[in-house]
Amino acid sequence: MHTANAINLSEIVGEVRAAFDRYEDALVHNKVEVLDELFWNSPHTLRYGATENLYGHDAIAAFRAARPSQGLMRQLLRVVITTYGRDFATANCEFQRQGSTKTGRQSQTWMRTAQGWRVVAAHVSLLD
Amino acid sequence: MHTANAINLSEIVGEVRAAFDRYEDALVHNKVEVLDELFWNSPHTLRYGATENLYGHDAIAAFRAARPSQGLMRQLLRVVITTYGRDFATANCEFQRQGSTKTGRQSQTWMRTAQGWRVVAAHVSLLD
Repeated sequence: MHTANAINLSEIVGEVRAAFDRYEDALVHNKVEVLDELFWNSPHTLRYGATENLYGHDAIAAFRAARPSQGLMRQLLRVVITTYGRDFATANCEFQRQGSTKTGRQSQTWMRTAQGWRVVAAHVSLLD
Repeated sequence: MHTANAINLSEIVGEVRAAFDRYEDALVHNKVEVLDELFWNSPHTLRYGATENLYGHDAIAAFRAARPSQGLMRQLLRVVITTYGRDFATANCEFQRQGSTKTGRQSQTWMRTAQGWRVVAAHVSLLD
């Protein structure tokens, strides 16, 4: 159980923010190998995307490999990272893609693994 | 850090499934007090809904209080609950509302608190 004083330890928030920023950079520059690295390599990993539901790291990696590499730039509007103890975090953000008027929302649950921080579940959608 | 053998401990999955089922029952029967109870009572709690972004337990509770109490029935299509150690879990599901042809997706991150399992972040959206 994580007591209230273990929420948002500054050291842990810094670690997760660095992982989150690395993911964002990889996303907008289509660094597929980094995207694949930062999602937990497990059949339990899950990603609900704007247009698809993907179950397992293999399905997510196949999606990354096939997606268009253009038009990926976006602006982050509001980012909320919350850490719970030393090994778990959520990262949520609103974003807007270049040329779009819709607001997107990206939710990630992060876990510390032996290999570093990894996304264990994610959900991306657009608000009309 | 949570090692692979701490994933999906059956006792913990059972606890989270019970909390998830209680939430689902409260959702379709508009038991607002249960919905409010099961979301972590914190300004850090966040819910991206089908049509709104809510930051903090107060904003989420205000939304629950104002929402229509009719037309809430839905069918769960696929549920994936994954637990990480003894204190963290994700619960994701696809669903279909009565009378709708769209598939919904609901993502929740759960944490064990002194009061029991609570949703610390959630994201709900509809696929076209």
